[in-house]
Amino acid sequence: MVTRKEDFSKWYLQTIQQADLMDYAPVRGCMIFRPNGYEIWEHIKEAFDARFKEVGIRNAYFPMLIPEHFFSKEADHIEGFAPELPWVTEAAGEELEEKLALRPTSETIIGDAFSRWINSYRDLPMEINQWANVFRWEKRTLPFLRTSEFLWQEGHTVHATAEEAQARTMWALNVYKEVIQETLAMPVFMGEKTPSERFAGAERTFSVEAMMQDGKSVQAGTSHYMGTRFAEAFDIKYLNKENQHVHAFTTSFGVSTRLIGSLIMVHSDDQGLVLPPALAPQQVVFIPVGPWQKNPEIIEKIDELFNQLKDKGIRAVVDDSDKRPGNKFNEWELRGAPLRVEIGPRDLENNQVIIKARDLEDKVEVEFDQFENYILEELATMQKRLFDRAKEMYDENTHYDINTMEDLEKHIAKCQDENKPTGYVLVGWDGTEESEAKIQELTGFTTRNIPFSGTVTPKETCIITGKPAVETVWIARAY
Amino acid sequence: MVTRKEDFSKWYLQTIQQADLMDYAPVRGCMIFRPNGYEIWEHIKEAFDARFKEVGIRNAYFPMLIPEHFFSKEADHIEGFAPELPWVTEAAGEELEEKLALRPTSETIIGDAFSRWINSYRDLPMEINQWANVFRWEKRTLPFLRTSEFLWQEGHTVHATAEEAQARTMWALNVYKEVIQETLAMPVFMGEKTPSERFAGAERTFSVEAMMQDGKSVQAGTSHYMGTRFAEAFDIKYLNKENQHVHAFTTSFGVSTRLIGSLIMVHSDDQGLVLPPALAPQQVVFIPVGPWQKNPEIIEKIDELFNQLKDKGIRAVVDDSDKRPGNKFNEWELRGAPLRVEIGPRDLENNQVIIKARDLEDKVEVEFDQFENYILEELATMQKRLFDRAKEMYDENTHYDINTMEDLEKHIAKCQDENKPTGYVLVGWDGTEESEAKIQELTGFTTRNIPFSGTVTPKETCIITGKPAVETVWIARAY
Repeated sequence: MVTRKEDFSKWYLQTIQQADLMDYAPVRGCMIFRPNGYEIWEHIKEAFDARFKEVGIRNAYFPMLIPEHFFSKEADHIEGFAPELPWVTEAAGEELEEKLALRPTSETIIGDAFSRWINSYRDLPMEINQWANVFRWEKRTLPFLRTSEFLWQEGHTVHATAEEAQARTMWALNVYKEVIQETLAMPVFMGEKTPSERFAGAERTFSVEAMMQDGKSVQAGTSHYMGTRFAEAFDIKYLNKENQHVHAFTTSFGVSTRLIGSLIMVHSDDQGLVLPPALAPQQVVFIPVGPWQKNPEIIEKIDELFNQLKDKGIRAVVDDSDKRPGNKFNEWELRGAPLRVEIGPRDLENNQVIIKARDLEDKVEVEFDQFENYILEELATMQKRLFDRAKEMYDENTHYDINTMEDLEKHIAKCQDENKPTGYVLVGWDGTEESEAKIQELTGFTTRNIPFSGTVTPKETCIITGKPAVETVWIARAY
Repeated sequence: MVTRKEDFSKWYLQTIQQADLMDYAPVRGCMIFRPNGYEIWEHIKEAFDARFKEVGIRNAYFPMLIPEHFFSKEADHIEGFAPELPWVTEAAGEELEEKLALRPTSETIIGDAFSRWINSYRDLPMEINQWANVFRWEKRTLPFLRTSEFLWQEGHTVHATAEEAQARTMWALNVYKEVIQETLAMPVFMGEKTPSERFAGAERTFSVEAMMQDGKSVQAGTSHYMGTRFAEAFDIKYLNKENQHVHAFTTSFGVSTRLIGSLIMVHSDDQGLVLPPALAPQQVVFIPVGPWQKNPEIIEKIDELFNQLKDKGIRAVVDDSDKRPGNKFNEWELRGAPLRVEIGPRDLENNQVIIKARDLEDKVEVEFDQFENYILEELATMQKRLFDRAKEMYDENTHYDINTMEDLEKHIAKCQDENKPTGYVLVGWDGTEESEAKIQELTGFTTRNIPFSGTVTPKETCIITGKPAVETVWIARAY
């Protein structure tokens, strides 16, 4: 078993495989989401889906295959996505007249549909969401974090005014922050992407970014304001109240199964997976101990406690397999079950169970009549505890006081010496693409996002040129 | 507006478009599931998903792209699916070394994974389900019923014994029947497919089939017992308790978005969509009438009643757009909202609403204090009423007393004369492929399934050859 300190990448790959979250696929860069991995995604979906539906964003499904000529309608869009597209060129034994891309995102095909469905101001806003598989044929792949096929949610909305569209863009970003913090227990950096990091075709792109335990960043969710650019490319017009045909304003926003990868890189430890209870496929695992096979009352008691939890909507499981308890403890630690409940003959006599939280060292004795309450409270406490621990890591590795390249290089050298994460650094930036490229060239750090004004103290000078800073921006190494 | 009697196909296409269920896609044979169409699918999913999870069948996700050589492992399987496959041949600007099929079904890629995941009897049963998009490049397409891309559920299970696998096959078939009857309000014909109609690679295939209002059949769900055929092709072996490596027994079963198409062909009428309340995106629509814009109390009252229903989990919607009530009535009839609630100034005075069920002629006055109960009861009653009406149609067009080709030809001629559905006919069959092909050649009827013994009176002679019948089989024209 390799540890995080020894080799973070190897540790990650080992952790997700030992927890039965995934398996490799026969096709390069694709992966299998095994039930334990997929169920995490199901709980993530539930959290977002409920929030979308609450405000009237409805699910729909658009074709996965997109004709080649669709991509040429928005110049930046094709430039951004063309290099990564897989193409269907033949079907049912015949070559196709026009080749078809596997969707990398659906702005084009949805924009085309919107142009038919929207006629008057009465049709606005039109707000849909799609849960789907998408494809980006990446060179370097990493399970969950960067795969040729992944699963995601893409929201697409159309509005009568720029203000409304912008408000929806910010609303989606806030929903991302809320769910990622509350359900995934991950603190995030929120802000606007620099122009070079914008979504291909967007006017403005915003992101939430999360810090992994190795200090690197994962872009966890993005929300885009398109202005009228896609509306112009796809002819999305509506008749306003003044009887004029005008272009509408559009947005899109998405999160993907890379959230699962970041979840693991934030919370798990050298003993395997650690999962926030809100997302854990098995929140509580019962393991009978001692000579339990000779004491049927033990399994009876477990069944009783199991049913108590089930009635409360808690996902519990009983491991009554014929393995040794020690092996079971180990397996369920690898899988990240938040709470382990042990019962043996002596516990039964004492009217108690032994409970071990996945993220704590000590075991606790809990009497039967306090069992249900204890579990409910401890699941909530653990959810908070994981967030707090992640926030501590985040705070420790967030650096506000680095102002020159000399400082930054010193910081990097020090981290390397001490085998510590380089983390996030807040720097001044003169707003030029040259300086942005220079940062990456010199340090491997990339701009993550520009925090919203008022959330940080602005920097005065650009870390590269020493000129007055136009923006203050988070930089970090990233997945 | 064309009617069902005038032109059933045209009526169907008109009905699904006017209800905003779908739109055509820029790619031949593909379609867009608009929110009203997709939400029906979401409710269908919920019904099946809950039943699968209850017995421990867990969701997973496997790659959509399947390498060409995978298909050659099971001879019948490739023969069955090869003619309909679309292929990815290039990606990211380069030609692929091996071309990749868009999955038509996932037995191959899942079988390959099972062979890695299953080692011992302790790993069995292994039972997973996948909700996914699949592709079959069909020549003739019809929205929902036959499209190049569709959405479906595919269950795949592995068992230690043939008995267990067979039991799961029958369990799945029964779940299909139950959900289709209870939630979709559609009576079904249940039975086994003839050998020529089996799933490519299966040992036995069972189906539930539904009768449309034009008397044609739709295969609504299929459940397959594979024996050890896929286990042999993909090397799915386990170490049994006697320490021997033996092949496991597998099953698969699926229902797809064609259920939406059949739902519409069973229940809808010449005024548009009719939906069972259990699946309707909007179960109740409130429409203010009279000079309601001058009486703010009307909308206040509607909000109050709306919230009452919302608390009970009923999907209600308020249409307070600036269209005329008559237009709204018409639109919501086209969309198939089960219950329409009207309130005008006089109703408010009388402490009542006017309620119109989509499938009944008369309106009913209901007092405010009985409103909630009335709605709850009427939704349940309507669900049952739609099933009963569909069952009546099913009974009327099911024919048990046709024993010779002469009888059958007479029946068909009579139906044609009277513009009536030809429906389902129970016939004797000598069990040969020749006779089966002859039935189709002479009448356009195909074998649907062989009802389980005891559910019908067996036929004595084959309708084609007059020889002793080996099987008694349902035949019908089919989509």
